[in-house]
Amino acid sequence: MKRRDFIKGVGVGSVLAGSTLAAPAVHAAKPHKWKMVTTWPKNFPGMGTGANNLAKLITEMSGGRIEVKVYGAKELVPAFEIFDAVSRGTAQMGHGAAYYWKGKSEAAQFFAAVPFGMTAQEMNAWLYHGGGMALWQEVYAPFGLIPAAAINTGVQMGGWFNKEINSLDDLEGLKMRIPGLGGEVLKRLGGTPVSLPGGEIFSSLKSGAIDATEWVGPYNDLAFGLHKAAKYYYYPGWHEPGTVLESFINKEAFEALSADLQAIVINACKASNVDGLSEFTARNNEALDTLVNRHKVQLRRFPDSVLKELKGISDDVVAEVAARDPLSKKVYDSFRTFRDQVVAWHDVSERAYLNARAL
Amino acid sequence: MKRRDFIKGVGVGSVLAGSTLAAPAVHAAKPHKWKMVTTWPKNFPGMGTGANNLAKLITEMSGGRIEVKVYGAKELVPAFEIFDAVSRGTAQMGHGAAYYWKGKSEAAQFFAAVPFGMTAQEMNAWLYHGGGMALWQEVYAPFGLIPAAAINTGVQMGGWFNKEINSLDDLEGLKMRIPGLGGEVLKRLGGTPVSLPGGEIFSSLKSGAIDATEWVGPYNDLAFGLHKAAKYYYYPGWHEPGTVLESFINKEAFEALSADLQAIVINACKASNVDGLSEFTARNNEALDTLVNRHKVQLRRFPDSVLKELKGISDDVVAEVAARDPLSKKVYDSFRTFRDQVVAWHDVSERAYLNARAL
Repeated sequence: MKRRDFIKGVGVGSVLAGSTLAAPAVHAAKPHKWKMVTTWPKNFPGMGTGANNLAKLITEMSGGRIEVKVYGAKELVPAFEIFDAVSRGTAQMGHGAAYYWKGKSEAAQFFAAVPFGMTAQEMNAWLYHGGGMALWQEVYAPFGLIPAAAINTGVQMGGWFNKEINSLDDLEGLKMRIPGLGGEVLKRLGGTPVSLPGGEIFSSLKSGAIDATEWVGPYNDLAFGLHKAAKYYYYPGWHEPGTVLESFINKEAFEALSADLQAIVINACKASNVDGLSEFTARNNEALDTLVNRHKVQLRRFPDSVLKELKGISDDVVAEVAARDPLSKKVYDSFRTFRDQVVAWHDVSERAYLNARAL
Repeated sequence: MKRRDFIKGVGVGSVLAGSTLAAPAVHAAKPHKWKMVTTWPKNFPGMGTGANNLAKLITEMSGGRIEVKVYGAKELVPAFEIFDAVSRGTAQMGHGAAYYWKGKSEAAQFFAAVPFGMTAQEMNAWLYHGGGMALWQEVYAPFGLIPAAAINTGVQMGGWFNKEINSLDDLEGLKMRIPGLGGEVLKRLGGTPVSLPGGEIFSSLKSGAIDATEWVGPYNDLAFGLHKAAKYYYYPGWHEPGTVLESFINKEAFEALSADLQAIVINACKASNVDGLSEFTARNNEALDTLVNRHKVQLRRFPDSVLKELKGISDDVVAEVAARDPLSKKVYDSFRTFRDQVVAWHDVSERAYLNARAL
């Protein structure tokens, strides 16, 4: 029996070939081919590009052992169907925001944005070192999903309006695109909140199907051309002070990975989280400048009286939503306790410093 | 010839055995054994533990292909000798803060903390999306080192004093532990800045070798027992509004890694960066509460008049330091340009929101 024949006989040809090539052994195994479905228009600045970067990072760190292909909204499934798609394994990862899934679980909203809730830095502290992540995992577990924070937008803008907002009465009767708990607050004020994926906002505002909208901040809002459909741009974004954009992973797909690849996926999200916030922080001012100085947008701060009333109503509405089911209550209790203590700390640190710098 | 004999004969026994075991091929190669030397006491909360976590993360994500062993200050080399130790390859990684190396390059200080400079979120934005990281790489390149942000402390406290600070005159003649550019400002005010590693602060303050000190924030300062050596605890930390704690890597050791392992090391630092800031943000309030309510520390805010004067002097001093050499000037120009635009953005976002929440 010749050596060649024996090797064929016992089927070790590929193994032997692998051992004589210079290519690293890590590339030898068949790669995990993952699909990432997103709620964002393909390549949309900040979010679509953030999803692309996350996919690339996973592929790079895994040396190609996981290949992630990103799909924009509607490419594989519509924006608001990605949660179900990843839950049933049509795709292995999703990229969106947890308040889009309040129909699945009211508790999900706390992991995206809470009116008068926490900033990016505070949300991360709650998730990574305050018990928040374990609760988020509990909320998504029944759907076979593992959540991760993938980007934070920082404090958003308050929204685009075609009239001035001088009192809460000006919000009454308003049909506004505003998702999650912020939408619940608008409803309490007599407005009509609408949840629309990003890609449908401009046309809805332009056509008059909605009267007003919020989206993210200058960097994103400029990209959608929202200044062509509304005149006044309000701040601060009391309803989304540090919105977490999420990634979620199909549990079976995740558990099929080796421990090192699992660590790579989870920590790629963490690196992406700080990278995304950094991108928004770096790009928003230039875009705001373009909006105000080139496009003559009217930049307006909500009056103190409006903000103060909004805070009181927000606290009530959020507590009521939290009382709807035990899991929401459990999440809310953790959120509120953490918020109160981190507000106390930031009163002597972040807030005290930002105000000192402005003296 | 029996199958067993053939296999022995051509020497493929280990390959074949490897293919029948469940252990992943990635573990087969000899691991890179790295030493990480630090400026922190071993296991010190936040910093020492942060270095441990970074080492563990690199080992986990690499599936053991890189093993990182952490050394506390003095275990392998003294705290302030880690820069040289990693530069010459005695260790492969270091964990410290860039202002400790101003004797090597004045420009290094801008990558740790600048008085009235940027917050954690702003520093990350500058480093990751504003050109800061490329400049930091340029500053460390002559030493054969690759820098990374590894933790951010957030806004620090203003320091521990045994007298009230009611005017700048109260800082004159003060011998205070305060590193980097903050120390340069104190010198301008007629004080004597001292740079000491963390482990030597308490004894120096207790013995009267120094009159005052700053360290980090409540979580760290409580751990050192600084309240047993000083009465007044001032805020906000105008001199360190978002201090970057760094990791740096020996360039040759880094270049000996495959591309996937290089991506793992760099992104482990990025994940560690947000994780560390989150830990400080989550732990500081409880520690502050303990200091104020159990240990009866006198919490004091610097008067507005003092902060305003400090800002003017800081801006002058920082500009003068930057003028000492072309590289410092280049870094400072980038830093200042970025700071000005991010301050404008945060005036309508982070600062506006934090103040709205406090109404």
